[in-house]
Amino acid sequence: MSYIRGFASDNNASVHPEVMEAIANVNSGHAIGYGGDSTTEETLRLFKDTFGKDTETLFVYNGTGANVIAIQALAQSYNAVVCACTAHINVDECGAPEKISGCKLLPIDTDNGKITVEGIKRYMHGFGFEHHAQPKVVSITQATELGTIYSLEEIKEIADYVHSLGLYLHMDGARIANAAVALECSLVDTSINAGVDVLSFGGTKNGLMFGEAIVFANAQLAENVKYIRKQSTQLHSKMRYTSAQFKALLSNDLWKKNALHANAMAKLLAQKVKGIDGVQLTQEVESNGVFAIIPHELIEPLQNDFFFYVWDEHRSEVRWMTSFDTTEKDIEAFVMTLKSRLK
Amino acid sequence: MSYIRGFASDNNASVHPEVMEAIANVNSGHAIGYGGDSTTEETLRLFKDTFGKDTETLFVYNGTGANVIAIQALAQSYNAVVCACTAHINVDECGAPEKISGCKLLPIDTDNGKITVEGIKRYMHGFGFEHHAQPKVVSITQATELGTIYSLEEIKEIADYVHSLGLYLHMDGARIANAAVALECSLVDTSINAGVDVLSFGGTKNGLMFGEAIVFANAQLAENVKYIRKQSTQLHSKMRYTSAQFKALLSNDLWKKNALHANAMAKLLAQKVKGIDGVQLTQEVESNGVFAIIPHELIEPLQNDFFFYVWDEHRSEVRWMTSFDTTEKDIEAFVMTLKSRLK
Amino acid sequence: MSYIRGFASDNNASVHPEVMEAIANVNSGHAIGYGGDSTTEETLRLFKDTFGKDTETLFVYNGTGANVIAIQALAQSYNAVVCACTAHINVDECGAPEKISGCKLLPIDTDNGKITVEGIKRYMHGFGFEHHAQPKVVSITQATELGTIYSLEEIKEIADYVHSLGLYLHMDGARIANAAVALECSLVDTSINAGVDVLSFGGTKNGLMFGEAIVFANAQLAENVKYIRKQSTQLHSKMRYTSAQFKALLSNDLWKKNALHANAMAKLLAQKVKGIDGVQLTQEVESNGVFAIIPHELIEPLQNDFFFYVWDEHRSEVRWMTSFDTTEKDIEAFVMTLKSRLK
Amino acid sequence: MSYIRGFASDNNASVHPEVMEAIANVNSGHAIGYGGDSTTEETLRLFKDTFGKDTETLFVYNGTGANVIAIQALAQSYNAVVCACTAHINVDECGAPEKISGCKLLPIDTDNGKITVEGIKRYMHGFGFEHHAQPKVVSITQATELGTIYSLEEIKEIADYVHSLGLYLHMDGARIANAAVALECSLVDTSINAGVDVLSFGGTKNGLMFGEAIVFANAQLAENVKYIRKQSTQLHSKMRYTSAQFKALLSNDLWKKNALHANAMAKLLAQKVKGIDGVQLTQEVESNGVFAIIPHELIEPLQNDFFFYVWDEHRSEVRWMTSFDTTEKDIEAFVMTLKSRLK
Repeated sequence: MSYIRGFASDNNASVHPEVMEAIANVNSGHAIGYGGDSTTEETLRLFKDTFGKDTETLFVYNGTGANVIAIQALAQSYNAVVCACTAHINVDECGAPEKISGCKLLPIDTDNGKITVEGIKRYMHGFGFEHHAQPKVVSITQATELGTIYSLEEIKEIADYVHSLGLYLHMDGARIANAAVALECSLVDTSINAGVDVLSFGGTKNGLMFGEAIVFANAQLAENVKYIRKQSTQLHSKMRYTSAQFKALLSNDLWKKNALHANAMAKLLAQKVKGIDGVQLTQEVESNGVFAIIPHELIEPLQNDFFFYVWDEHRSEVRWMTSFDTTEKDIEAFVMTLKSRLK
Repeated sequence: MSYIRGFASDNNASVHPEVMEAIANVNSGHAIGYGGDSTTEETLRLFKDTFGKDTETLFVYNGTGANVIAIQALAQSYNAVVCACTAHINVDECGAPEKISGCKLLPIDTDNGKITVEGIKRYMHGFGFEHHAQPKVVSITQATELGTIYSLEEIKEIADYVHSLGLYLHMDGARIANAAVALECSLVDTSINAGVDVLSFGGTKNGLMFGEAIVFANAQLAENVKYIRKQSTQLHSKMRYTSAQFKALLSNDLWKKNALHANAMAKLLAQKVKGIDGVQLTQEVESNGVFAIIPHELIEPLQNDFFFYVWDEHRSEVRWMTSFDTTEKDIEAFVMTLKSRLK
Repeated sequence: MSYIRGFASDNNASVHPEVMEAIANVNSGHAIGYGGDSTTEETLRLFKDTFGKDTETLFVYNGTGANVIAIQALAQSYNAVVCACTAHINVDECGAPEKISGCKLLPIDTDNGKITVEGIKRYMHGFGFEHHAQPKVVSITQATELGTIYSLEEIKEIADYVHSLGLYLHMDGARIANAAVALECSLVDTSINAGVDVLSFGGTKNGLMFGEAIVFANAQLAENVKYIRKQSTQLHSKMRYTSAQFKALLSNDLWKKNALHANAMAKLLAQKVKGIDGVQLTQEVESNGVFAIIPHELIEPLQNDFFFYVWDEHRSEVRWMTSFDTTEKDIEAFVMTLKSRLK
Repeated sequence: MSYIRGFASDNNASVHPEVMEAIANVNSGHAIGYGGDSTTEETLRLFKDTFGKDTETLFVYNGTGANVIAIQALAQSYNAVVCACTAHINVDECGAPEKISGCKLLPIDTDNGKITVEGIKRYMHGFGFEHHAQPKVVSITQATELGTIYSLEEIKEIADYVHSLGLYLHMDGARIANAAVALECSLVDTSINAGVDVLSFGGTKNGLMFGEAIVFANAQLAENVKYIRKQSTQLHSKMRYTSAQFKALLSNDLWKKNALHANAMAKLLAQKVKGIDGVQLTQEVESNGVFAIIPHELIEPLQNDFFFYVWDEHRSEVRWMTSFDTTEKDIEAFVMTLKSRLK
């Protein structure tokens, strides 16, 4: 079986061999469903080791599920969620957050995917005014959809501001591993320790077959979330197969190795295309994505050789994502093709 | 790693080796996400071969997701869904159907999990009356939650009646394979060919790691369902891993072998306990579940040896489910323990 | 302008002259919208006088609105609401409770519209089990849709049971005035004092043009309900016109006079038809509704003279409602016609 | 009873005497509920006379209800609604559109409350892409929340563009009467004839006690809207009292007289404050609202004498609304106070 290699998304990658092995290792005998099994128990212990003993974690199928459940846990339907206009919850979930939580989304325009206290302030009014969807959650993405990264100080500043107004801070960490290794810090330092109340912790884009974890800063925030998970259709019956994957990811620093490699490949790609005439990088390459403007007529032929997505049709901007299984050879081949087409 | 074997649910079983192998076989290289890969393409072709060329199929994570999406595809929020009071959508999905589709559920009391035209009629009034949630979908479960099975004639009778009133027939086929082998018919004969408009086709309980398929009788019914799937948080990014499992299930009659075995084990179990003093079977054993009343004080000690669920606390009724990986040894050991505890 | 008089519903009646006068009296000058006006302030004080100083009240447009907001105030979407199968929320609101609150409704079969602790118990299980919509509210209707009335002891028994399990008791009091006068007690005695947590207090069926009040037993239950009211589209901008009506209703015992009259007219009607051959009363006449089985072929011709609704087509059962403006003459004329048609 | 007069909102005004009289005139005898009465029938005929014989109209309680029902009639939950960031549906309905329709709102930044084809284009992409909430409705407000007015050409241009993409055009006409008189055209010319598919036709702000009408360009668009109205809690039982008000509004050009007066008063107010030092008008005064920046320290004392709302705290911008019952004396008194405070 052969697939075209490319830079479409980190979810076009395969499952990491260690994750596959972990799955195979639990594939014998019976296990209580829905999380009552010993693998899940062990893995949840690993999450407490990683994120702190006060945290509570639930596993779900995917990122949209994680985000939608997190919002429901933090907000009522008459609340509003502030986020970057580029946020996954705002543009890539087909309106799932609005439909399932009932909440209004309040988007902040941003050039680099990052929001600031200044941007949030625009929406911090109308508290107590019943005509106004009441702001209750601010959601940031780490690393952002544009491959940029919030520094720990930036997160803390947002968290302090958000908390001072009685709001919660949610982090969409579909690529939190890429952010942590870039910041050379731990997973908990760039999330819970920086003031995040609920984290959507991504697994799929970092080598799992499927699976995201929702990490709550404390048990109170997670109080009724098991019902929300079930009602949101995100409860896996054969949970051991989700848990085993996360166990592998948090063991032997696999999350770190995968993320380091993906980031390094993006850096390499950026470095190799930076000098090329006709290619203009549009974002700092801080994690595992490279954004560039290239001649419009090149896009389609190039996609036929290496699949990737157009980010902004209008600007002729494309997105190249790397992953744990991107090879230097992939990059060399791609750059060579790019160069030859640019001639 | 050791798990207690038992009869709790067919989702306590492991993943069938052929399914694991199929997963491993697609685990190399890149594949377009969200179903744009070649494995998905091939598997969808297999579904057309199985259910007819006019049908359309989508893959989702789990049964609750499949049911909730099916209802949304067939009904508006002001519609109502008629089902057995024992239906999974009515008692086991934490209200997901109501919340996500907005529809009212109209439960029919039933002793054996099966509904009839007579029972449906109770709710067939108030059409055009705006105070009344308008009935639009009838949902039946095959095999039922009580292990019983609708004959093809029974399904057709319901389908004809339902269609004569302009309603749709949905089948929750979480265990359709067990029903088909019991009826000695094909999957399509006990569903689409019998008049079912939309089928939730179960994979997880028949040997998959996760995954259900939603089969629409025709393309028109499925017209906008891809948006519904995404908005309902049920779209898998690394779809090749879902598709590969279904491909395995529909290849080499794996679905049939698994179901035949599970059913045979239930029959064996029923046969072995039938004569025992203090054990009273409460349902015909037509698929892979055995329902029995046993002395109340026996339940807990027995659960410690072989995990299973209490079905009706009040009646001291328990449920024993078998699966593709239940062994004759399991049953012998269980029956021996049961007998010894009954002394 | 002439309308056919009849017994269709107490909402076919006109607006009581004192209510019209109260409306006219506030119709001058400007008033702050959405409830910030002095009439609303005064009326809310009257509600505290009537229902107790700890209670909190909000005005809404109609009964469906009141019920749906009450449920949202008491329950999350993963909760369930237990009610009689005949309850207005279950059969007459086109699924609004399910759609807007997301909650599952759990109907109890009943012959006379009243539920009992015994009936509620059927659903009191599965607490903490995430697959199960968690029961959180029991809703009773006073007077019931069948014209029957809960005694204070019956309400208290239900309230005690409900509270002992951590659930809330909601009362749909669309006809609470009719119940209170029948019980010869105050409005608060048959609701809050009997253990009701939230009351939908009906105005429209007792002489208002529109308007229902939601009375919360304490401020904590009402904490965020102003947002829920607004988001549920039930906030009246020119609120003074709603409040003025309620002020009239609670002044000079208007609520009581109207209800006493309506009940007396129902009693009179019942008394006059009781002896008639071919007419069989099906419910005790305790408030302002008379339920009777009459020959099927009589229904349509009789409706042409005096409009009323068929309650149960199958049984040939009809419903005759009286209201504050029903006259003895109405009843005499109706009974005469009925008798002449029965010959 | 005395109220402070002011410029807070056109819904702080009272009910027009002719409307009160119309209400009184239907207040006798019985009438079939929920719209089956003769007053409703007559009034619906008036709507057909006004908006065209192909149109269909439903009455509801308020503007939020009208808008939310209109969106549900036009869109599925996976659709998106494009509107001005200042739109009532976006900022003044506590998230009701998102919660009840499930749709995502896509706001366009605007200085004067009006959106353009250029602005809409920003969101016209991603059709067929399941990750993207599918744009299906564009909603414009006439007159806008900033008192400005779309010309007929501007509406037509938007309508043509919207329809060319298969989308619908919704008009929030809470103040459509003010727009029509300003444009010196009929109600239908500035709505249905200009390409509007569904109109929320406002009554409350133009002299009614309560009541909005939803006008559908054709019967097909309104096909199932009666269920949506009921399920959205917006069906009035004693409908004759809603209909009578609309009948009065559409009779003897009452809608026009009221709107002409309100607009004239706004023009007068604008003219009188324009020259004043310290007062800066921020919008063209095209209908019945005046927007101005005034010294911040003046706002509160001025509000004590004449109630009005702050529009933009940050800019010290206030909003003064006039209505059918604003008098020249009101304006003179207000301007005098303003001037004296500015000294």
